[in-house]
Amino acid sequence: MSSGAVLVVEDETMILLDLETGLEEAGFEVVGVRSASAAMAAFDEAPDAFKALLSDIRLGPGPSGWEVARHVRQVKSTIPVVYVSGDSASQWGAEGVPNSIMITKPFFIPQIITAISTLMNEQLPTDTPTQPASD
Amino acid sequence: MSSGAVLVVEDETMILLDLETGLEEAGFEVVGVRSASAAMAAFDEAPDAFKALLSDIRLGPGPSGWEVARHVRQVKSTIPVVYVSGDSASQWGAEGVPNSIMITKPFFIPQIITAISTLMNEQLPTDTPTQPASD
Amino acid sequence: MSSGAVLVVEDETMILLDLETGLEEAGFEVVGVRSASAAMAAFDEAPDAFKALLSDIRLGPGPSGWEVARHVRQVKSTIPVVYVSGDSASQWGAEGVPNSIMITKPFFIPQIITAISTLMNEQLPTDTPTQPASD
Amino acid sequence: MSSGAVLVVEDETMILLDLETGLEEAGFEVVGVRSASAAMAAFDEAPDAFKALLSDIRLGPGPSGWEVARHVRQVKSTIPVVYVSGDSASQWGAEGVPNSIMITKPFFIPQIITAISTLMNEQLPTDTPTQPASD
Amino acid sequence: MSSGAVLVVEDETMILLDLETGLEEAGFEVVGVRSASAAMAAFDEAPDAFKALLSDIRLGPGPSGWEVARHVRQVKSTIPVVYVSGDSASQWGAEGVPNSIMITKPFFIPQIITAISTLMNEQLPTDTPTQPASD
Amino acid sequence: MSSGAVLVVEDETMILLDLETGLEEAGFEVVGVRSASAAMAAFDEAPDAFKALLSDIRLGPGPSGWEVARHVRQVKSTIPVVYVSGDSASQWGAEGVPNSIMITKPFFIPQIITAISTLMNEQLPTDTPTQPASD
Repeated sequence: MSSGAVLVVEDETMILLDLETGLEEAGFEVVGVRSASAAMAAFDEAPDAFKALLSDIRLGPGPSGWEVARHVRQVKSTIPVVYVSGDSASQWGAEGVPNSIMITKPFFIPQIITAISTLMNEQLPTDTPTQPASD
Repeated sequence: MSSGAVLVVEDETMILLDLETGLEEAGFEVVGVRSASAAMAAFDEAPDAFKALLSDIRLGPGPSGWEVARHVRQVKSTIPVVYVSGDSASQWGAEGVPNSIMITKPFFIPQIITAISTLMNEQLPTDTPTQPASD
Repeated sequence: MSSGAVLVVEDETMILLDLETGLEEAGFEVVGVRSASAAMAAFDEAPDAFKALLSDIRLGPGPSGWEVARHVRQVKSTIPVVYVSGDSASQWGAEGVPNSIMITKPFFIPQIITAISTLMNEQLPTDTPTQPASD
Repeated sequence: MSSGAVLVVEDETMILLDLETGLEEAGFEVVGVRSASAAMAAFDEAPDAFKALLSDIRLGPGPSGWEVARHVRQVKSTIPVVYVSGDSASQWGAEGVPNSIMITKPFFIPQIITAISTLMNEQLPTDTPTQPASD
Repeated sequence: MSSGAVLVVEDETMILLDLETGLEEAGFEVVGVRSASAAMAAFDEAPDAFKALLSDIRLGPGPSGWEVARHVRQVKSTIPVVYVSGDSASQWGAEGVPNSIMITKPFFIPQIITAISTLMNEQLPTDTPTQPASD
Repeated sequence: MSSGAVLVVEDETMILLDLETGLEEAGFEVVGVRSASAAMAAFDEAPDAFKALLSDIRLGPGPSGWEVARHVRQVKSTIPVVYVSGDSASQWGAEGVPNSIMITKPFFIPQIITAISTLMNEQLPTDTPTQPASD
């Protein structure tokens, strides 16, 4: 029985390690990647393997974290999205997706854990309609 | 082009009239009934004709407003539910459904309008998954 | 003393009229336009004249309501944004901006009024820091 | 059967009239006063007659709207509080009470109606504990 | 000085152990039981000993988690309630209680900790009215 | 790279130790003090060194936790504030600041961690306006 994983995208190795360690110690499963293209490839291969996205914004050459989030939301329209950033945080109001959380660097690990957990808990239990009662 | 209606259940004629008038003047379409059985019959005949439920709790002999709400939620699991009541309001924590609003009598009409509007606006836009982008 | 206006963008004339009338009767000032380019031009000319954006998604040839919202948020990062749409509502999770509300057509006018008012009331009172008390 | 009234405190006559008219047309009962001392006297005489407080901040000589709100909350610890202000809005974070709403002047009337209604609807249905079921 | 305990109801031994271990490591006190009848008996014996309920839905023969939650809410009308379930999650909209959280299995332990903590923190500080100030 | 610290104010040594240990183990940096005057002095010396306030209410002779919170909010109007208290909790509605959390003693450590993290995550990413896009 597996819960799926949190997809973590961060191009700075030390911060990626911190995030992976913090999330795993809290009890999450994590798949960490270091570029937007790696993130999108991992997600497209198995969308159902991922239960949340945690992404840095500036990811070197190529797409940014804003694009990664829109990409995964086009397939899973309500998947939890948490952004972490320093100087790009002010663009969240224009570039972020709905029901996402923006965490400004530097941050504390419990902020990340609480953000992902809160968004997961706000997910509707299921998308399949309930059966009418037979009463 | 019709938006569907708010199903209003209230056994006191004067209050039912107040609710119908207030909601219609604000711009809602309303179907008013005076018993739980009439409410459930109207709903079962055309579930898609209703976009919200507004129900008194004590409705004379037969089922209460608590039962009406559970009944409609078994078919439409996220339909907005607003209760109005005097002496039954304290049972809301045990008998109400999730994401509902309990308004204690006596009330002001804008409370009703705001409650229904707010719950409608929190509905997920659609239940059908979005198409993956072709990029 | 003026409060600024709600910028309303809708290419269907009848719906635009309904929105303008409903908002004005409720007490709002409204500037209505019928295309994305007209909306962006009106906003760019006087960003401080607008306190909220209400936009349809599909606006004929040219940019969509998604682009209009991102455009105004790049200048005013927390301005209230409400979308109305029929068949594009399911893309909100990927294309919408944070802290926006998606209202699915057909809708009731009080949903619009409540959505705009609620978002306006969640605005931080001011962006200027308070002065330290002299105690 | 009376719902109690909204206590409105505003020292500028024209704005007080606007608020009274707007709230009454929406369906609220209103008691309007023009100073903090009049507000506290009216409230102390009959605390149960009031279901919400709407107060300007700067009220001429004597206590401010911040003091009026703390005064009524000392007797009714969860009564809805809405502030309206121009230049004092930035002090809300330090001087306001919990679960209040700060609306910056100039404002639209539906903001006021929605703020009061939303806070009233968040009130717990009753403070008296429910009886254990006899099952 | 004791904080009371979280009442955990889960009929699958391995999952019950996971929940007990996870909650205790986080700092909670836990009372774990494996049936609805044991849960209701433990609660009825000392309602004040419990600060939250965490319950599976399908609990073998006898009442379900839906019934356990309604039972405890009839005595303590605002006690935090968190459900965990796999195939019963879609019934939450009809069978759950207000202000509860539904977590779908499989889950991560921090989701449980965050859900219980968040609901506890939303509790009104006290039910006893404050004393009027003597000013 | 430092995140700043949580300022913890508690005059009972054992509880202060519990709070410091719990927060540090979770990943926060903590500055603990045992009186209101020490808290205000530490804050005034370096306001930017603090990202949140966690304060007991009754702090012996001198100002209470209510005053400490108002003091820091006068300089940083949106800094997260969490109160912990036993017998003063009922005054929160009158004496607390907006967007604060009141936690009643006795409490569990994850309540504190979740409260601080949640309030930090609700902070607007930045107060500086974003640059208009050059499109």
